[in-house]
Amino acid sequence: MTARPLRELLRVPAGQRLDLGRRDPAATPAGPADKAAGRAATAAMAQPLGSFQERLYAASTAGDRRRLLLVLQGMDTSGKGGTVKHVAGLFNPSGCRIKAFKAPTAEEREHPFLWRVRKALPQPGEIGVFDRSHYEDVLIARVRELVPPDRVERRYAEINRFEESLADDGVTVVKAFLHISYEEQRARLLARLDNPDKHWKFSPDDIDERALWPAYQEAYELALERCSTGAAPWFVVPADHKWYRNWAISKLLLEHLEEIGPRYPPGDFDVGECRARLLAT
Amino acid sequence: MTARPLRELLRVPAGQRLDLGRRDPAATPAGPADKAAGRAATAAMAQPLGSFQERLYAASTAGDRRRLLLVLQGMDTSGKGGTVKHVAGLFNPSGCRIKAFKAPTAEEREHPFLWRVRKALPQPGEIGVFDRSHYEDVLIARVRELVPPDRVERRYAEINRFEESLADDGVTVVKAFLHISYEEQRARLLARLDNPDKHWKFSPDDIDERALWPAYQEAYELALERCSTGAAPWFVVPADHKWYRNWAISKLLLEHLEEIGPRYPPGDFDVGECRARLLAT
Repeated sequence: MTARPLRELLRVPAGQRLDLGRRDPAATPAGPADKAAGRAATAAMAQPLGSFQERLYAASTAGDRRRLLLVLQGMDTSGKGGTVKHVAGLFNPSGCRIKAFKAPTAEEREHPFLWRVRKALPQPGEIGVFDRSHYEDVLIARVRELVPPDRVERRYAEINRFEESLADDGVTVVKAFLHISYEEQRARLLARLDNPDKHWKFSPDDIDERALWPAYQEAYELALERCSTGAAPWFVVPADHKWYRNWAISKLLLEHLEEIGPRYPPGDFDVGECRARLLAT
Repeated sequence: MTARPLRELLRVPAGQRLDLGRRDPAATPAGPADKAAGRAATAAMAQPLGSFQERLYAASTAGDRRRLLLVLQGMDTSGKGGTVKHVAGLFNPSGCRIKAFKAPTAEEREHPFLWRVRKALPQPGEIGVFDRSHYEDVLIARVRELVPPDRVERRYAEINRFEESLADDGVTVVKAFLHISYEEQRARLLARLDNPDKHWKFSPDDIDERALWPAYQEAYELALERCSTGAAPWFVVPADHKWYRNWAISKLLLEHLEEIGPRYPPGDFDVGECRARLLAT
């Protein structure tokens, strides 16, 4: 018996309604039994993930344009930064291109919203990670009414065309929504307040954003419904348990890298001749 | 008794002649007893390195401009890439900015040699790693006579001024020459030839470069003599033993981060008030 891939369990079906209220943030679908087992299973993926990454990079030196882009979205404290640290940290940093998107700068605001995203894409052979992304332009932009509703509306289609062009250019796009509960967010924000070493991560604005929780959940549902496509599906990752979140993201990446199946390129030189020349030195 | 810092043992003294022939590439000064102990000691530095990195990054969110730049130079197979993988891999990748410099592109050749380097510098709070650097412009440029000798000569002073300006702007520059022996390079190149999965890392040009070994050693001696300054010293890291190289670079970084001594910034909000607001949600 072959286990059903995690990507099938967590994928948002294209063209269907999504009700986040019916997805349990504390669930652990197909996951290890507990935290200890989860951590061990994640650590055990470091070797195969690193091996795939090396082959992906090696293949790019021979002209293979394929690469992988992990897009992380989620409410404050959902664990985007923790995922970068614990999952992206499993890879060789030299082949990773990590970008945390903040509020757009003055220069960025003068360009179309995808401009800054195009500049941060992984190059052939690389593993890219976006901590927030162009989805902010249909999330906070919608909730905070930063642009008119009809412009937000057009952006879903723009995003789908953009991501399809990425897929055509060899980019495997893996989009993960880190799904936490309202209660878990409160507990994590409190933990930040109660530890002075974490005050730098906290802002009173976080509480204002939290007050808009229902509007954000709705904006996420819309974004995930409209933009979960065959070329670039969305995955809802239950994230109340950090160990499950790290395991699930690692597993999703592993499944996609297995599908890419990069191979070491052959050398274009005469091994015997080089060997002889080298031994003569 | 306090052990003498590794940085003092490995530093190239400013203003003195350097004879690389008298530095043993297989030495393990102040290092652990063997490979197993070396690996364990390096792994044990992951926690303090990560902790310093987080504090450095946190401080930058409150305006602290300090950051660290590790510059890696060395002959082919000396382990620049391996150091990035095993040492930079100890840090949180979101706070690392890693740049591997290749032969300059057409665009880069149209600019002064420091242009592409300035664009790749770590931002405040980041750990930067250069795999090769502006030193190629006084190494291969000298050995291969890519530019006239008097221009190479002027570059040493330009580099010193550049690195002093970095230090003035809060950049701790740690320059490590990975010192391997001629015999060890042969063994490593042969190992690449003998493993088809490593052929992508090999080029017959590597043998041509190897033929210029004495000229490169001389170019390194000159660069390290001229550019080991108070603001940005060079360290000669014996690199025939990979485990020692990884330990020594980790230790050098730890010593420099300890000296920087970054602190978590205090919050600028009323904790009690935020706590009450949060508990009401």
